[in-house]
Amino acid sequence: MPATERPVIGFLTDFGYDGAAAICRGVMLSIARDAQIIDISHAVRKFAIADGAYLLRAAVPWLPIGVSVAVVDPGVGTARRPIAIRTGRGDLLVGPDNGLLVPAAERLGGVASVRELQNRAWMLPATSATFHGRDIFSPIGAHLAIGEPFEEVGAELDVGGLVRLDLPEPEAHQGRLATGVVYVDSFGNLRLAGGVTDLHAALGPVEPGTGLIVDYSAARGGFSALAASETGAADARRGDRWERLTWRRTFGEASPGDLLAYEDSSGNLAIAVSNGDAASRLGASTGARIGIRRA
Amino acid sequence: MPATERPVIGFLTDFGYDGAAAICRGVMLSIARDAQIIDISHAVRKFAIADGAYLLRAAVPWLPIGVSVAVVDPGVGTARRPIAIRTGRGDLLVGPDNGLLVPAAERLGGVASVRELQNRAWMLPATSATFHGRDIFSPIGAHLAIGEPFEEVGAELDVGGLVRLDLPEPEAHQGRLATGVVYVDSFGNLRLAGGVTDLHAALGPVEPGTGLIVDYSAARGGFSALAASETGAADARRGDRWERLTWRRTFGEASPGDLLAYEDSSGNLAIAVSNGDAASRLGASTGARIGIRRA
Amino acid sequence: MPATERPVIGFLTDFGYDGAAAICRGVMLSIARDAQIIDISHAVRKFAIADGAYLLRAAVPWLPIGVSVAVVDPGVGTARRPIAIRTGRGDLLVGPDNGLLVPAAERLGGVASVRELQNRAWMLPATSATFHGRDIFSPIGAHLAIGEPFEEVGAELDVGGLVRLDLPEPEAHQGRLATGVVYVDSFGNLRLAGGVTDLHAALGPVEPGTGLIVDYSAARGGFSALAASETGAADARRGDRWERLTWRRTFGEASPGDLLAYEDSSGNLAIAVSNGDAASRLGASTGARIGIRRA
Repeated sequence: MPATERPVIGFLTDFGYDGAAAICRGVMLSIARDAQIIDISHAVRKFAIADGAYLLRAAVPWLPIGVSVAVVDPGVGTARRPIAIRTGRGDLLVGPDNGLLVPAAERLGGVASVRELQNRAWMLPATSATFHGRDIFSPIGAHLAIGEPFEEVGAELDVGGLVRLDLPEPEAHQGRLATGVVYVDSFGNLRLAGGVTDLHAALGPVEPGTGLIVDYSAARGGFSALAASETGAADARRGDRWERLTWRRTFGEASPGDLLAYEDSSGNLAIAVSNGDAASRLGASTGARIGIRRA
Repeated sequence: MPATERPVIGFLTDFGYDGAAAICRGVMLSIARDAQIIDISHAVRKFAIADGAYLLRAAVPWLPIGVSVAVVDPGVGTARRPIAIRTGRGDLLVGPDNGLLVPAAERLGGVASVRELQNRAWMLPATSATFHGRDIFSPIGAHLAIGEPFEEVGAELDVGGLVRLDLPEPEAHQGRLATGVVYVDSFGNLRLAGGVTDLHAALGPVEPGTGLIVDYSAARGGFSALAASETGAADARRGDRWERLTWRRTFGEASPGDLLAYEDSSGNLAIAVSNGDAASRLGASTGARIGIRRA
Repeated sequence: MPATERPVIGFLTDFGYDGAAAICRGVMLSIARDAQIIDISHAVRKFAIADGAYLLRAAVPWLPIGVSVAVVDPGVGTARRPIAIRTGRGDLLVGPDNGLLVPAAERLGGVASVRELQNRAWMLPATSATFHGRDIFSPIGAHLAIGEPFEEVGAELDVGGLVRLDLPEPEAHQGRLATGVVYVDSFGNLRLAGGVTDLHAALGPVEPGTGLIVDYSAARGGFSALAASETGAADARRGDRWERLTWRRTFGEASPGDLLAYEDSSGNLAIAVSNGDAASRLGASTGARIGIRRA
């Protein structure tokens, strides 16, 4: 990029909107005064690493190549490592080694290399035990954003040693796609594991207007509950409840209040209510198991 | 403006704060790296076109002349047209042709011309059926923000053919101003259709300290419920409930907890509770009919 | 700073996220097109001057030296004065004279001088009675941010005449530290008056793993309720309820769900639940009295 181009820093946390994110922004701008900070979200559900990972992964492909700082970090101040990942596309992702960054890196060409954050000269002079967002991740992100070398962050780590989340995988079985809710967006749309290819593999061709049956069992507690269940997301067992819905290209093709399944704007399966809230309607949240078959 | 001045892009959606707005910002900054994006709001009530129109209209006069992108778009992916409006003041408003943009344009000197968004070279290479904010509105807004010609957006449309919202109009009848709630702000203040001139026309001169009676019938469902009722906002029929209040110049002239009517900072009528929440107190929301007369 | 460095404007209000803060941003950028506006928070509890003062004071040390505009202003349009404070560090704080700015100034080297906002040429041409954030504070803040002289703001005021909040002070008595909740952050962590030095003065040395007893009586209504109580925050009387907890260095040293006390990232005492919400657990909010002693 030209020397005069303003650095971009994506920024995602579960800090909410009462000042902690602004403190980090202040730290970043003290180092990179000219940066364009893109607040991806600070409304990530508290401590929900998988939610943060989902949102980071969804956003980063649309940002200019640059640095992103992500902090959903229930283990702050413990032995979990602070890291920076260089992606295949050339982005640098800065945050805790707790699984938060890896899905985003995989969307950006994979983990090219990873280093532990060790360069004390790039951190704040005093580092607290509870606010590494301010003391470590933000200043190091800003140093990288102004073009200081990735190699100076700290020692290279083994890519295979990165903490990874146990994310559900869709599975086809006897004409049913077993999947799970990986995120509930602010509209209440249920974002599912897997894409249209997976649906076709299970059900054969599906067109706008095709009738479907979705069965589901509400599970609260997120991915871990899903992954830890004996049967798992890929279980072909039917859910407790079911509803009819229609495969649609977009919301407005359904009547307001109608349930629909669609390919979301990231290419993944999703369930919505036209002009409504599918999560409330189905009582389903992240971690809920979902099955889809033909009506 | 000087060639070196940073472009301004106003940005309003009902996307909430979990990443979709940031994806759009990433797309805009990929094209207009130097832009000042002013997030007007992403907390617009879901699918509430009239709420979005109200907030956009309230904000744009205070932004530097520039581009604004607005997306409250329950019809995304259907036949509703994507458009850009050039206003009398010189601003460019980008969004769906569903009524969202017109009130703002009218505040900025009116609709000077309108074009359909057709220039595929300014859109993202792949356009989804559910996220035109990302694929169409943001990139086209950014191309306009960096000074590319409005004429290249697409074919000119007939101004008379624009979709317009059916907004309530205040009406004076027998010493009563019949109006309606057009927006409830984050303080719970009820913003009403009409200004002080309308109040004077109905009640004669009103001064700080003048006692008033407000009658109201709570209606939920927004403008459409209001507009669709047989009687309409201009109905002189009394509401179901009423309260006494005082005309005030500002909140602090009333005692905490007191109900007051005032001219809001946009020159419109409004009802508030000093240090409190009028919408909760009256149980009134957007679309509620309001009558005001002398005590 | 170099002439080409972009001005920074910190910005804190209780306006919420539905457009009023964006209007102010539009006004600022109309004057200071190149500014980096750092939104500290617009989610301050409505009318809660002490909450705003807490968040502003917490954030400003981490921002580059510059201007901050803060508006939590239930007395807008009344006799309360609009002011600008120059701090010992060189920052300029702009807002109402209602106690909001002083704690921040004290964190930045103290109040060096204070002036009333009187320069009409720096305000918007028409100033409303209800939106000084837009009409007075934002434009004056922006004029200062682009380097116009502080002396031209208006007449110098007596520092001793500034309105100050009545904030609780921790007090040691018979092996117990009597303190109070000064803020509940978005995680539900209770931020307390006083630091580790105060705790040590009351209890002697405390180390990670030391068992403590916290007693508390939930009080709603904020600082004023606390300060106005006959006994005050420093009362040695035991609270109505109590819980055991452990002094920790960071959240992750406790098991999820465990209550802990810790030194927060500002150097103050705080109470948290590991991966949970202490305010909900204890039913405590701002203004609650808290006592801490050894278990």
